[in-house]
Formats: sequence, structure tokens, C-alpha cells
Amino acid sequence: MIITLTTDIGWEYAAEIKGKIYSINPEAKIVDVSHEVKPQSIAEGAFIIYSICPYFKNAIHVGVVDPGVGTDRKAIIIECKNSYFVGPDNGLLIPAAKRMGIKNIYEIRINERFSSVFHGRDVFAPAAARLSLGEEASKLGFAIDEYVPFDFGLPEEEGNKIRGKILFIDRFGNIITNIRLDADKFVVRIGKIEREVKLYPSYGYARVGEVIAVKSSSDFLEIAVNQGNAGRYFNAREGEEIEIFL
Amino acid sequence: MIITLTTDIGWEYAAEIKGKIYSINPEAKIVDVSHEVKPQSIAEGAFIIYSICPYFKNAIHVGVVDPGVGTDRKAIIIECKNSYFVGPDNGLLIPAAKRMGIKNIYEIRINERFSSVFHGRDVFAPAAARLSLGEEASKLGFAIDEYVPFDFGLPEEEGNKIRGKILFIDRFGNIITNIRLDADKFVVRIGKIEREVKLYPSYGYARVGEVIAVKSSSDFLEIAVNQGNAGRYFNAREGEEIEIFL
Amino acid sequence: MIITLTTDIGWEYAAEIKGKIYSINPEAKIVDVSHEVKPQSIAEGAFIIYSICPYFKNAIHVGVVDPGVGTDRKAIIIECKNSYFVGPDNGLLIPAAKRMGIKNIYEIRINERFSSVFHGRDVFAPAAARLSLGEEASKLGFAIDEYVPFDFGLPEEEGNKIRGKILFIDRFGNIITNIRLDADKFVVRIGKIEREVKLYPSYGYARVGEVIAVKSSSDFLEIAVNQGNAGRYFNAREGEEIEIFL
Repeated sequence: MIITLTTDIGWEYAAEIKGKIYSINPEAKIVDVSHEVKPQSIAEGAFIIYSICPYFKNAIHVGVVDPGVGTDRKAIIIECKNSYFVGPDNGLLIPAAKRMGIKNIYEIRINERFSSVFHGRDVFAPAAARLSLGEEASKLGFAIDEYVPFDFGLPEEEGNKIRGKILFIDRFGNIITNIRLDADKFVVRIGKIEREVKLYPSYGYARVGEVIAVKSSSDFLEIAVNQGNAGRYFNAREGEEIEIFL
Repeated sequence: MIITLTTDIGWEYAAEIKGKIYSINPEAKIVDVSHEVKPQSIAEGAFIIYSICPYFKNAIHVGVVDPGVGTDRKAIIIECKNSYFVGPDNGLLIPAAKRMGIKNIYEIRINERFSSVFHGRDVFAPAAARLSLGEEASKLGFAIDEYVPFDFGLPEEEGNKIRGKILFIDRFGNIITNIRLDADKFVVRIGKIEREVKLYPSYGYARVGEVIAVKSSSDFLEIAVNQGNAGRYFNAREGEEIEIFL
Repeated sequence: MIITLTTDIGWEYAAEIKGKIYSINPEAKIVDVSHEVKPQSIAEGAFIIYSICPYFKNAIHVGVVDPGVGTDRKAIIIECKNSYFVGPDNGLLIPAAKRMGIKNIYEIRINERFSSVFHGRDVFAPAAARLSLGEEASKLGFAIDEYVPFDFGLPEEEGNKIRGKILFIDRFGNIITNIRLDADKFVVRIGKIEREVKLYPSYGYARVGEVIAVKSSSDFLEIAVNQGNAGRYFNAREGEEIEIFL
């Protein structure tokens, strides 16, 4: 079973997680999803794990975006159909786990001698490594019913207006929103910048430099500039509001 | 057979490619070459794949720099002696494939239900995974004769002057050109900045801060500043012209 | 045996190292620790290798931060209890190797036809690959007694003042120092900025935005801003002096 790592801790610290995993399971297969999530942005981390999880058939997804490490926030394992999620109980894993179908949630028993600074290495890595060896989640923790929730929010509709949120801006400057929409043509407003855009099946259909909309692979509305940078065009930030006028 | 990935899509989207590959071939060995090629720079991507390919004995090299995704540009597999190249038919794979010796080119049959936004994940990844399982390229597509060409250009010589191009600037600021040259000492001009340089066998022979020339491992002329940054010194950009006066 | 790579050469060139390793040992397991060490910063590279090495049970750690490549600086293998270190004889490997316990040091025989520009690929990679196949270090080089030393320096104490050094600033802006300390509360000065801080067991105990001290996982004093960026707060640079007033 593959172990994926999505963290905000940088490559160097992530290597300590990998060392720990290989020490327990030398045959582990690890996929680095990202170690450059915006520092302490649970929203960005949650979006990335949510986006990638359906493309893994069987996997243990470890998430480390953990501003509350060392406090009494819980460490959890979420068991889904063909996958596990391991990380802090701060919402980071929830959208992805819901997408894959939550079956059980376990709180990991934390050994007191563990470093209180780096649960990614000292708590989540051993749990993931042991799951990858076939140990049952119920042996690594005890079942719990409650968890810290998180979602991407539902856009508000009001007449011909939809007000949503920017979930992620990728390295092309493409703006991924929490809006699902099927209109052919509409006006987008982010901050003070407003623009009429057409929805295309893909970037390649638009003129170079045209501001367009496409559907992201998670079916979210995405605002892009063909061969340009929509994030810079709209001066947009993750978490910011976006308005659509139909 | 190893699968290498050279993309401009960032680590997060690249994880979807890896998930797809492992879903088809759980035993695949994947090497991340880069996911930070300059967005949509076919020239930079082509140079990187060209540079790394001779160091892999047997490999399937996947390239994803794909501004035309979703249009009618073809998806191709190039069969070489001990390697395959998989990606868009936009020139990205050509210099590398020529370096390894092109034997056959196949157009990949694209299933209509595939996302038109992300062929890296939906078209190239499955093709690479199936090649890594030993399937024949001829089963994954049909042979074609034509492809979109691309090369690094040939420098022009005129008396004692050579006019070439900057192919790549690495993270040290070393400037790799498309010029092959054996002179000991010459003048380099990039933009308005002109400088006499000596050709050294390696950086370490020069004084700290000295502007020098060395031969890159692909035998291209490389302009460097020992323990400094030649890109900043010359204010150079990829694709820009460079002139040598012998 | 796992091979880890810690380099300042960027992902593209690192792929050539990986190709070389897999060509010699197709079953190798490679961990990318970092390819973005600050260019030619032996101090940063040494700190990273030092930090990660105890978390690998059995490993061959390759380090490539190599401003002297191509001169007569030696290439070495350091044999420790359950690990090897392979790289340039410029101090890069020494703090880590001492941490793991140096048993023997070997100078690698360098084949003259090897590129003098890129020992990472042409000298260190083959040595690491052959060690990973179980070859003995004594077959790859000849034992030597001397090596270029390097350490993180010892802080100076003077009355109630401790003067140390900044070893590393991570991507959260956390400032890791070479100071070991147990006081509850003290004043920190970096450059012209001075601040009273408390030592907490972990970030999560502090107020958001509070400047604090914690112990890094290597037991070094670390200055942080809870959910903020201490590097920016103090305008700090790696290698800079830090003073503590008890």
C-alpha cells in the first residue's frame, strides 16, 4: 500500500518522516505529493489531499499541516474504503476522507516520550508505516465518533449572482474555486477586477492571453488565462471571495 | 523499467499522474525529474529531458509541458533503443528522442471520455504505466511518420563571431548555451554586457567571483561565475541571444 | 539499503544522479532529502544531513554541495555504524558522520575520464550505488586518516550572555541555532532586534503571533513565532550571530 505525504514542512523535515517510515517498513512505497503547502494553511492542504486521493487505488494518505502540534489536538486515522488518512484532527483530512467515504475514525495513542514538536515524524509516520504493513487501524488507536470538521464552503446564490471562494491558485496562476457551474458565459469579479469569460472544454480552445473558465478535474470552476496567469491578472489570493454574475 | 516525469505542472498535479501509474502498475519505479519547468516553456522542458535521458539505462520518459492540451494536438509515444518517450506532439520530446535514436513513433488512441484538461494524468500516465508492464507501444497507438519538430537551433558563425542562444539557466545562475566551442579565451556578450572569459576544465580552477566558461556535461558551452551567479551578472533570460567573439 | 540525496544542484541535475544509481542498482531505494540547499552553502547542507541521519536505520547518505569540484579536493566515503556518507571532502559530511560514529574514511579512486564538472553524478553516485549492492567501502577507495573538518561551532558564554550562531532558517521562518539551553525565559538579540521570549514545549502552547523559543528535534534552541515567521521578524540570515541574555 502506497503512502502519500502532503505537508507544509519542507523537504528536509519530510525526509525525517520518510526515514521513520522506512525504518519500520523497508518495503514502503512513498509518494511526495507536496512539502510546500502554504505554511499552516489547513485549507490549501485539505484541497490538495482532496484533489489527489481519487487517483490512488489503495493508499495511506498522511497530511501534516499542523499549527496545533503539541497541544491537546488529537492525532487520528480515518479508515475509508480503499484508503486511510493519517494526520492531525484539525479538519485537514476531512474533505478527502468524505470524498472516499468515511468508515471509521480512530484516535492514535500517543506515547508520552514522543517529541511534542514534530508529530509528523513521531506519531503519524509510525502509524502510517504500521498500516502499510497490514496492521489494523483498531490496533493503533481507539474508535472515536467526533472530529473537527472542515469543508470548502457552499457558494451562496442570490438572483443571478453566485458568491464563492478561491480554494487554490496553482503554479500557472489558475484560480480554482468552490463553485460548480454549467453556464457558457458569465462575468467574474475578484476584488475590484471584473471580466466577462466563456467556459471552454480546455485551455487550448481559447486565444492566447484570453481570460477563460474551465472545469477543474474535481469539477470545480477554474478561472484561467490561456498561456498567462489569472492569479496575477485578478491579483487574487487563496481564501478570497469570488463573484459570478450570470 | 523506470518512469521519469518532467513537467511544468507542480508537485500536486504530478501526484495525480503518480497515483494513476501506480494504480496500473503497483511495482512501477518513478523518478521525479522536475515539476517546476517554467510554465509552458517547451524549450526548457525539452532541454531538461535531453540532458537527463542518457543517464538512464532503460526508461520511459514522460514529458508534460502542454499548452495545447485539449486541442487536436496528438499524444505520442516515441520508441528508441532502450527507452520510450511519452507526451504531447509539440516538440517537447524530440531533442531527447533524437539523442537516444528514434526507432518508431506512435500516436496514442485517446479515449473520448478522458478529461480534456489533463492528458498528463489521463493519457500519458496510463500509456507509460502499460509500457512499464511490458506492453508493446504498437498496442497503445498506431504508427505515424510525421511529428512536430523542435531543436535547440544551430549557432551562426560569421568571421570571428558566433551567435547562439541561451537554452537554460540553472539554479546556480549558470548559463547553458547551444554553442559548442574549443577556444581557450574569448569575449561573451549577452544583452549589453560584454566580458572576456577563459574556458576552464571546471569551476574550481577559477578565482572566486571570476566570470568563466566551462563545458556542460552535454558538451554545450556554459557561462558561469565561480561561486557566483552568471545569470544575474549578465541579466540573462532563457531563449535570449548570446554572442561570442573569438 | 536506502540512498539519500542532499544537494544544492536542483532537481534536474539530481535526476542524472538518480539515473546513474539505478543503472548500477536497479533495485535501489532513493530518498530526495533536498535539492535546494542554498547554493554552495556547506554549512546549510551539513546541518540538513546532520538533522536527518538519525532517522534512517541503514542508509547511504550522499551529499553534493561542492564548490571545489574539479580541483584536487578529495571524494570520500565515511563508514559509520549503520550508515555510509559519500561526498566531497569539504566538511559537508562531518557533523552527520560524527553523530553516527565514524569508523573508517576512504578516499574514492577517481577515474580520470570522469567529467570534472559533476562528481555528484560521475563519482559519488556510482560509489553509493555499489555500496547499496553490498560492495565494501574498502574496495571503492583507500583508507585515509585526515579529512577537512567542519562543525557548527560552540557558543561562547560570558557571564549571563551566550553568543551563538544561526544554523538554519526553515520555511516557517523558524531560526535554528547552535545553542543548547534550558532556561525558562530569556532575552534574544539578532542584529538590532531584541526580544524577551519564553521556552515552550511546543509552538501550540503559545499565543498566535508570540515570539517564543522551543527545542528543535536535535535539541538545539529554536526561535519561532507561533503561526508567524521569526526569520522575517528578526530579519535574520543563516550564519548570523545570535545573543542570549539570561
